[in-house]
Amino acid sequence: MNSIGKILTLTTFGESHGPAAGGVLDGVPAGAVIDMARLQEFVDRRRPAGQFATSRRESDTVEILSGLFGGKTLGTPIGFIIRNNDTRAADYSAWADAYRPCHADYTYEAKYGIRDYRGGGRASARETVARVVAGGIASQILASQGITVRAFTSAIGTVSLPADYVPETLAAGNHLGCPDPVATAEMEEELARARAEGDTLGGTVTCLATGVLAGLGDPVFGKLQARLAAAMMSIPAAKGFDYGDGFAAAAARGSEIMDSFNPDFSTVTNHSGGIQGGITNGADIRFRVAFKPIATLMRDIDTVDRHGNRVTIQPRGRHDVTAVPRAVVVVEAMAALTILDSLLLDRCSRL
Amino acid sequence: MNSIGKILTLTTFGESHGPAAGGVLDGVPAGAVIDMARLQEFVDRRRPAGQFATSRRESDTVEILSGLFGGKTLGTPIGFIIRNNDTRAADYSAWADAYRPCHADYTYEAKYGIRDYRGGGRASARETVARVVAGGIASQILASQGITVRAFTSAIGTVSLPADYVPETLAAGNHLGCPDPVATAEMEEELARARAEGDTLGGTVTCLATGVLAGLGDPVFGKLQARLAAAMMSIPAAKGFDYGDGFAAAAARGSEIMDSFNPDFSTVTNHSGGIQGGITNGADIRFRVAFKPIATLMRDIDTVDRHGNRVTIQPRGRHDVTAVPRAVVVVEAMAALTILDSLLLDRCSRL
Amino acid sequence: MNSIGKILTLTTFGESHGPAAGGVLDGVPAGAVIDMARLQEFVDRRRPAGQFATSRRESDTVEILSGLFGGKTLGTPIGFIIRNNDTRAADYSAWADAYRPCHADYTYEAKYGIRDYRGGGRASARETVARVVAGGIASQILASQGITVRAFTSAIGTVSLPADYVPETLAAGNHLGCPDPVATAEMEEELARARAEGDTLGGTVTCLATGVLAGLGDPVFGKLQARLAAAMMSIPAAKGFDYGDGFAAAAARGSEIMDSFNPDFSTVTNHSGGIQGGITNGADIRFRVAFKPIATLMRDIDTVDRHGNRVTIQPRGRHDVTAVPRAVVVVEAMAALTILDSLLLDRCSRL
Amino acid sequence: MNSIGKILTLTTFGESHGPAAGGVLDGVPAGAVIDMARLQEFVDRRRPAGQFATSRRESDTVEILSGLFGGKTLGTPIGFIIRNNDTRAADYSAWADAYRPCHADYTYEAKYGIRDYRGGGRASARETVARVVAGGIASQILASQGITVRAFTSAIGTVSLPADYVPETLAAGNHLGCPDPVATAEMEEELARARAEGDTLGGTVTCLATGVLAGLGDPVFGKLQARLAAAMMSIPAAKGFDYGDGFAAAAARGSEIMDSFNPDFSTVTNHSGGIQGGITNGADIRFRVAFKPIATLMRDIDTVDRHGNRVTIQPRGRHDVTAVPRAVVVVEAMAALTILDSLLLDRCSRL
Repeated sequence: MNSIGKILTLTTFGESHGPAAGGVLDGVPAGAVIDMARLQEFVDRRRPAGQFATSRRESDTVEILSGLFGGKTLGTPIGFIIRNNDTRAADYSAWADAYRPCHADYTYEAKYGIRDYRGGGRASARETVARVVAGGIASQILASQGITVRAFTSAIGTVSLPADYVPETLAAGNHLGCPDPVATAEMEEELARARAEGDTLGGTVTCLATGVLAGLGDPVFGKLQARLAAAMMSIPAAKGFDYGDGFAAAAARGSEIMDSFNPDFSTVTNHSGGIQGGITNGADIRFRVAFKPIATLMRDIDTVDRHGNRVTIQPRGRHDVTAVPRAVVVVEAMAALTILDSLLLDRCSRL
Repeated sequence: MNSIGKILTLTTFGESHGPAAGGVLDGVPAGAVIDMARLQEFVDRRRPAGQFATSRRESDTVEILSGLFGGKTLGTPIGFIIRNNDTRAADYSAWADAYRPCHADYTYEAKYGIRDYRGGGRASARETVARVVAGGIASQILASQGITVRAFTSAIGTVSLPADYVPETLAAGNHLGCPDPVATAEMEEELARARAEGDTLGGTVTCLATGVLAGLGDPVFGKLQARLAAAMMSIPAAKGFDYGDGFAAAAARGSEIMDSFNPDFSTVTNHSGGIQGGITNGADIRFRVAFKPIATLMRDIDTVDRHGNRVTIQPRGRHDVTAVPRAVVVVEAMAALTILDSLLLDRCSRL
Repeated sequence: MNSIGKILTLTTFGESHGPAAGGVLDGVPAGAVIDMARLQEFVDRRRPAGQFATSRRESDTVEILSGLFGGKTLGTPIGFIIRNNDTRAADYSAWADAYRPCHADYTYEAKYGIRDYRGGGRASARETVARVVAGGIASQILASQGITVRAFTSAIGTVSLPADYVPETLAAGNHLGCPDPVATAEMEEELARARAEGDTLGGTVTCLATGVLAGLGDPVFGKLQARLAAAMMSIPAAKGFDYGDGFAAAAARGSEIMDSFNPDFSTVTNHSGGIQGGITNGADIRFRVAFKPIATLMRDIDTVDRHGNRVTIQPRGRHDVTAVPRAVVVVEAMAALTILDSLLLDRCSRL
Repeated sequence: MNSIGKILTLTTFGESHGPAAGGVLDGVPAGAVIDMARLQEFVDRRRPAGQFATSRRESDTVEILSGLFGGKTLGTPIGFIIRNNDTRAADYSAWADAYRPCHADYTYEAKYGIRDYRGGGRASARETVARVVAGGIASQILASQGITVRAFTSAIGTVSLPADYVPETLAAGNHLGCPDPVATAEMEEELARARAEGDTLGGTVTCLATGVLAGLGDPVFGKLQARLAAAMMSIPAAKGFDYGDGFAAAAARGSEIMDSFNPDFSTVTNHSGGIQGGITNGADIRFRVAFKPIATLMRDIDTVDRHGNRVTIQPRGRHDVTAVPRAVVVVEAMAALTILDSLLLDRCSRL
């Protein structure tokens, strides 16, 4: 239940306020060169940045415990941990009994009869740090095979890029993760308004994978879009997934979304998002993930406690106004893991 | 790759023009009563009906080969087949070399170096018949536990029901699968226009599961929405998935989608679609699947063959103008399988 | 629970007296030539033969339902069934309540609360027919890669071949599956004595895989011997497994079982049975499976019924005196499936 | 490949001379009380003790990183590490090129093209420390359900206990893990002789699980003996597995191994080792694991290097004369994991 992948398998662990987050990335092929500095940079992209982000500041130092030798992968599982530094022994007793609305407090307790009430436990977005470590490794291996996976913020609140927007370059420095400066300015305005009212915003992340050969993915239940959807919808706060023309295709006519072949088997258009029948056709993979606004408002919240009594809780400390910019690298990480897994699986498709 | 599920596992097989489609449903708990007549009715809902549907008419008779004894499940795997009757030995040689645009002809051949070119092989929607048999069994078991899964056509082309539409009753007799008569009439008009122009339409299916207890689903990669998304995106022609407020939530403010608790832990609203942190909260599960228009137009299609030569192919026989009505029961089937699997898994969550 | 394998996955179904046994072999690489006549011959090796075998005579005709096209594998799942012909509507009511000792009657009912009491249901050795179909396919693919898997009867009752016996040729015609004529004669004598007393015998099957390259198998839980052990111990009546010097190695000194290297990395001896650290070293894989005597004696049996009352049951019809000869091809089949799966998995071990 | 289990899943990582060994135990039911002191004691049973054991002395301090809260399991994955302390920066260059006979040096390099040559990497028995941590947790949970799993040394070299030996008590203090004082004295003599000659010994471990209810385990590929065999044969140096009468049953007559029922469904004898048709019958589970002698002799060893040149290597430091006593707790750990997993799976067997 805490594992994903078929050949390349990631298993993660860690409560948000426990000693560490971590994971095991198994099935990594031997002989891949991993640049630790680049890996740390990749992980750092997940850290909060800018004025609309939480003040929780973890150093997020990646500690690799196995699977690497002399800078190369051994083919054995890569175990890693990231210590949680910023988990001061605060007084969480007020939280122990209250169920925050639109959080997983109630559902975890309904399921398990017990929960780590300090900050969301396993339901916290803190768990995504392990995904990013693993995805950073996958991303480096994909790059060595000519495959690039890049995501960007395509909407925050009501400000969105055109559906077919293709960034010229992905400015990693941008604290909102949006490659378009005009849209970025509008998003900043909308974020400022929301923050002023103690409110929060959601948005969408668009992901592009380029350099993918035809033939990755599988028929029926192993369709690449099904595996990407599972990977993306497992990210905290994700509410929707579509690929290619996606939901817009549902309102189109068949003749409007037909990707005609060129004589070299490339397609004139890419309404399909690079996938036909669950298998890549060599065009760019393109998909989109919708994220809901953060459930923790900067307002007093009326809710109930575990005994069904009405209580009012106050948000603790500063929080992100939107999680979307920080989700960009998580989307990339999950996409890289899924695509690398498909690449390995595909080696078994012919005698 | 042709299996789905953790405890309740469905494995399917069958090319569209081979002797049979079939599957194995493993992990079915022992002692469940299965009504074969109701199962056949469920499967028959997938058959083409009405004026906008293909004339391929399979009898789709379900043959159960194991796992049932005296009308009850044995706890052993349920093997079943559905013979393909309507696979006349036609001349498919014109299709053997051509790659139809927006089909899986090219991608299967890129992957495997070989394909069954008679009608789509494993990529044909014919494979969904095995899903429906298995889903029909799961559906009956869920019903015995007080859980009902029902889907309906919520959009065809540009005609759509309101996002929060809740059907009073699901009229199974309606050939479009849409519970609203006014929308149905509009959909029929749009379908007639499309057909007249040799074109096709997509749409969306909305699914509701009622009677689901709190606590189903798992954290992190086993989130119920992730598993539902994988199940739905594995259906042929599915282009998108969202749950609760879905993509609309991405443009909302946090305060607008907050599901406040009542003292009995139910929620005042259900923006969450019945799932918080990957785990059900007892409210109705609600999600949506987008389907693209059928890729086979009733027009000559210019494309290329496997040697890269430009060729023109003509569609064979009559085809559906839209696949959405037939997808309704497939969505239900996949939802039933996923939810029953979660129900079984949940039995292991506490000591 | 009814599936085995990682990439190459076999799922089986079928009660002994149901309409059919069958299975789905998924993950078969595309483009492999399958000779149906040879496959049927392989399956026929499992049928009872000779004077010490049951008179139940199934034709065991293999019906392939998918995954093959023009004599080649498509890369899609191979679904197959074998109809049960010899399941006359006999009166099994005397069996419905009685628990035969050393059968699975009681344990199945303890687990499931229900069982198909007609002849053993899923616990019957009848289920192995599906393994042999799948193993026969795997065996043909292995042969195309230069790998041969052959098993033989190495002991029946107290008559056994030397531990290091290597057959010159495997005489498929021998009804006991033993390549040594002297031992065969002794086994026949011991079987005749046992039968005269209404008793049964067990024995061992030894399996040799030749032509296996170094590098198959995985570390830790994926060790090839662990996977072979699981495959073999899943065969009905198997009581033990060892490989290389096996249990005898436990009583030896380290210096006696040391396989020294030759300069070409082959080893001077093969105490290791072709596997070091879970991974093949290029020497022949050699292992042994112990089978207990058949639990159905040709005598009246005093036992209890489901209410705990003492009852006496009489064996129905003729049964095998020993199951070992028929187990030979099942061992081969399970070994072929395991080794082919390892071969495919190994394609993912290096970048 | 580095994971085992279906519901209760253990994934391990760690090279013998890397920074840490560790693992993730997923699927642990919520609400189980874990006593950390008892867990550390369990893990300490794996450490070398007595005069025939290596002088490598790891403190083996268990560090739990997640999944526990207030002394109870949360239902979330339990991540843990054990730091490797005794991995001094020695000069391993002489080992970098040599392939030790009967070790995994050659096979790992044949598979991966790279290996961590410092002390065996992932093939070292060092990896078993993670199994013991997880097994210790499983063992405590089983104990809370009335199930006890205990193993003991039943043979070292040519000294062995009777096949049906049942210990009155398991003296954990005994450095050889053998409950019989007379046999222990003989084993010590044989070990002293072997050590004097620079040689090593193997042996067998017998495991007993008591208090197991009828109904655990599954049909066909999920048979409990198949899962136990896989778990045991994955332990380094394991060469064989049998259960109940095991290999001896192969030479017996059917009438000699018949476990007759008592009216309360218990059996008069237990030749079956507590399992019928893959499912427990309520009698004690009894099985045996054969271990080969340690491959590192205290003598100069003639072998070849990776270029095929003949070289002589000298063993480094002191090593165990036999690994069997230390394997006892590893066998217990793997048995506890397998049985607890079966216990959880069984919750899904009936509606």
